[in-house]
Amino acid sequence: MSEIRGRLVVQQCVSASLKLSRGEGQEPEIVEIKKGMVVFVCFLNGASEDTVEQLTKHITSIRLTEEEESGKRVSVCEAEGDVLLIPQATLGGRVKGRSMQYHANVDKVVGEGLYRSLCCKVREAVEAVSGGSVKCGVYGARQVLSMNTNGPFTHIIEV
Amino acid sequence: MSEIRGRLVVQQCVSASLKLSRGEGQEPEIVEIKKGMVVFVCFLNGASEDTVEQLTKHITSIRLTEEEESGKRVSVCEAEGDVLLIPQATLGGRVKGRSMQYHANVDKVVGEGLYRSLCCKVREAVEAVSGGSVKCGVYGARQVLSMNTNGPFTHIIEV
Repeated sequence: MSEIRGRLVVQQCVSASLKLSRGEGQEPEIVEIKKGMVVFVCFLNGASEDTVEQLTKHITSIRLTEEEESGKRVSVCEAEGDVLLIPQATLGGRVKGRSMQYHANVDKVVGEGLYRSLCCKVREAVEAVSGGSVKCGVYGARQVLSMNTNGPFTHIIEV
Repeated sequence: MSEIRGRLVVQQCVSASLKLSRGEGQEPEIVEIKKGMVVFVCFLNGASEDTVEQLTKHITSIRLTEEEESGKRVSVCEAEGDVLLIPQATLGGRVKGRSMQYHANVDKVVGEGLYRSLCCKVREAVEAVSGGSVKCGVYGARQVLSMNTNGPFTHIIEV
């Protein structure tokens, strides 16, 4: 486990929306995607731009999405699906007694930089080859997620 | 990784509903929970009733749920929250090239038995100490999930 630097939980969805608070007195921002996948992201100790590259490749190329007519699995790009990337530090937790401990998580400032980089790279990769759009959450903020699935299919991917 | 026998993805929710198809011509059944947690479950090679016991203990006792007033983390039982258990064979996948492989997943018949056992044990454990209710999916069936979170907080638990 100590060598894992990036961890994803990927869930196929029919639609998903994320409400982001923007501080007191401001209306929350809502980001939405249609058919595609919700990707929860966590960076662990030792994560670097290399980790970002590997995760980008996995997110955009692994065949996780069911093609509607054939039922065949294709990548989210091949399916022209959307991607919603949500930072999720809790994925770095390990059970210790009755609690979760987060000692393996990367430093917050480093994690925020890597998350922003991942958002850029996934957006570039998806928009270069497909009509899908890529939306992102806000690192370290409370986010209200609603999602609808037609499966659901949940995958864990570690690099 | 080869020693992992049970894997969970746990997501805190404000509400969740799962639509279960019951065969042609029949109305789908809908199971719903209120505030509590959605637990995706996968059994891997070597899983046994021991694995079920360990997962039951983790699901019911680990402090994963935020207490509304204090913000303190408590167990789903302490929070009197509901639990929705969803069988999720895709959690057993490992990346191989551009595909996911599922060689580590337990035999389907064994997996179904263990899943049913987990549902019974978690239900007994929750209902013995809290007002929360426990709902289950159907092993091997396509299930349409909708969920709303106020976090979201996603955890991976392996035994």
